[in-house]
Amino acid sequence: MIYLDHAAATPVLPQVFDAMRPYFSERFYNPSSPYLLAVELRHDYEAAKTRIANQIGAKAADLIITASATESINLAFKQISQPVDHPNSILISAVEHPAIFANAKQRGNFQTIKVDTNGRIDLADFARQLQPQTQFVSVCLASGELGTIQPIAEIAHLVATERLRRQLAGETLPLYFHCDASQAIGLLEVKINRLGIDLLTINAAKIYGPKGVAALWLGHNIKQPKALIIGGGQEMGLRSGTENVAAVIGFAQAIEIACAQINSYRKHISALRNQLKAKLATCPQIRFLGSEKLQLANFLPITVAGLDAERLIFKLEQHSLYLSTGAACAASKGQKSAALAAIGLSDAEIAGSLRISLGRLNKPEDIDRAGELILSAIQEECQRLSRQKGAKSDAE
Amino acid sequence: MIYLDHAAATPVLPQVFDAMRPYFSERFYNPSSPYLLAVELRHDYEAAKTRIANQIGAKAADLIITASATESINLAFKQISQPVDHPNSILISAVEHPAIFANAKQRGNFQTIKVDTNGRIDLADFARQLQPQTQFVSVCLASGELGTIQPIAEIAHLVATERLRRQLAGETLPLYFHCDASQAIGLLEVKINRLGIDLLTINAAKIYGPKGVAALWLGHNIKQPKALIIGGGQEMGLRSGTENVAAVIGFAQAIEIACAQINSYRKHISALRNQLKAKLATCPQIRFLGSEKLQLANFLPITVAGLDAERLIFKLEQHSLYLSTGAACAASKGQKSAALAAIGLSDAEIAGSLRISLGRLNKPEDIDRAGELILSAIQEECQRLSRQKGAKSDAE
Repeated sequence: MIYLDHAAATPVLPQVFDAMRPYFSERFYNPSSPYLLAVELRHDYEAAKTRIANQIGAKAADLIITASATESINLAFKQISQPVDHPNSILISAVEHPAIFANAKQRGNFQTIKVDTNGRIDLADFARQLQPQTQFVSVCLASGELGTIQPIAEIAHLVATERLRRQLAGETLPLYFHCDASQAIGLLEVKINRLGIDLLTINAAKIYGPKGVAALWLGHNIKQPKALIIGGGQEMGLRSGTENVAAVIGFAQAIEIACAQINSYRKHISALRNQLKAKLATCPQIRFLGSEKLQLANFLPITVAGLDAERLIFKLEQHSLYLSTGAACAASKGQKSAALAAIGLSDAEIAGSLRISLGRLNKPEDIDRAGELILSAIQEECQRLSRQKGAKSDAE
Repeated sequence: MIYLDHAAATPVLPQVFDAMRPYFSERFYNPSSPYLLAVELRHDYEAAKTRIANQIGAKAADLIITASATESINLAFKQISQPVDHPNSILISAVEHPAIFANAKQRGNFQTIKVDTNGRIDLADFARQLQPQTQFVSVCLASGELGTIQPIAEIAHLVATERLRRQLAGETLPLYFHCDASQAIGLLEVKINRLGIDLLTINAAKIYGPKGVAALWLGHNIKQPKALIIGGGQEMGLRSGTENVAAVIGFAQAIEIACAQINSYRKHISALRNQLKAKLATCPQIRFLGSEKLQLANFLPITVAGLDAERLIFKLEQHSLYLSTGAACAASKGQKSAALAAIGLSDAEIAGSLRISLGRLNKPEDIDRAGELILSAIQEECQRLSRQKGAKSDAE
């Protein structure tokens, strides 16, 4: 089996699973119970939060544990406190996750910031769209379909400049910058101070941790944080519900491994990516999407204009090779990828696009075989299409 | 170790853990990915939802998976679609979970329905408070502090009568009845048809399943269900986020075991409860709370007026016996229990109240020892207090 869909899901690492394991059947208490066993569990939980926070240069007290990146994103948008009454109230990039689009749309007034052909945000367009009425900006650290890394610090600088202008002008409308780093952790250094953001979404499920656990970091600019889920008052009242200790322990273990091994992992994974890219580059029909220099090391999105990517996927699956079209969420509902349209791909190119994403399950010896399988599947499909065309023109 | 806090948390059963296990590191795919391995995982997920739904006599299509009972409760309240502009817009019982109180309070206008000295809802008061402006009713199937079983079918009948009246009068204000069955599953038969409700919260964490997974059943009276968390459109658009397949598999396994063994479990657990109750009844200072006939079989809440329950808990902990005061959530924040005040306990009785809740970790041979430990801890505390009193009156 060759798995090339690490951007959609990653397996839980054995070390992560082993760390979680005692919290199912042995250390199972409710961390809010009064006796020492439960108090110890509360300590384990808080220590795990501190370990997660440390990896992004933050404090546990500013980290809200949630059940998914999607929940973190919904909680981030919940911080918009004033009526969204201007077309530019909310700004998002054109390559955001569907959860960002859904939340922006639900609020009513939002603008999508242009991206270039690599999927990188157009800073001039952003500067134009950032207006005195803008309240919320959301840009991913790296796009989930193209792996394109966004210039977060530059965007943050523009946001800070506008915030300063408001302060000097005596304007009180808050302006928050949220960054979704779900795809980037473990491949890029993610430090809140360097990013200069107000809200950060991180997720365990893409870094070989468990599903069902993520976090939102809230900076001190958020003066009166608002909760999405209220009740018993857990997570400083910002996200109620009995703490999922096992999952948070797994998250801590996964993010520590991801961050500790970031350099060797990135080196290893870009070598594999380059190996596969060199192989695929022998096929002139393949167009590589995005720019390698501005891309996560594990991403290799490609397109073959005119091919049906779904057919390719089913063909490759028969050889136990697994990959996706675009983002899993959008793809499963047969929606056209907004990100691929935004970088200027034609419908034929979007239909023929594959998202290859490498990871820990890949070995160098698999890569050549993967390349051959992909190449021969593409060749077969191209031949089938040209036979169809031939038959069609013969008939005419 | 003797664990008497099953109402706060239960360990994951080995069979449940074994069922979940393959979904961490082997069957880890994103159920939205297009290849067959992921499609199979999607089938596993849907099959698990069907298994959960079947246990409450429902269909999987009407079940929304969430990450906690608290999230389910927040999602239930989200279904209130009209402005909450009348004092009786929302009705809740006086013995609800803090998540119900928090959601009712956040909406502004709500009334708390009286309960009798056993914690059972006052149907006459409910009938009085149920008015043409009422939109939402929330009553737990069994209270988390007292284990008192509520007359849900009777409440549902009153709700249905009011709904019929509105229909005949041409009134269009919706009226929904939500029931939180978190504590009751596995101890009471929970079938949506017999309950006659519109919304039902169930939870894996109290039935020896994993934490971090629960569900909300939505009946067909809810015409246009609303989501709390939006994004990729999972759970029919009502709860976005990558599905936590492992947790849902665990939930299915746990609820099947709980429902299949309900009669033998209830018989076993009430025998243990009666054994402990008989032992404790030898101490005249102990008052048993609630009425055994109207109580979950695993609950034995008690109070010793004037004692400090927290001191008792720490004393008992030294003998490896673990129990709680009231509900874990409220207790950890030092709040006075609303439920215990509602049944008419004095402050001295509330301060001296313990929630003993039995479960699978208890063996008959532990029960006598537990009884002796509790009795001697109470006697020591009473003696300490009377010595203090004596010293005080001597000094005067």
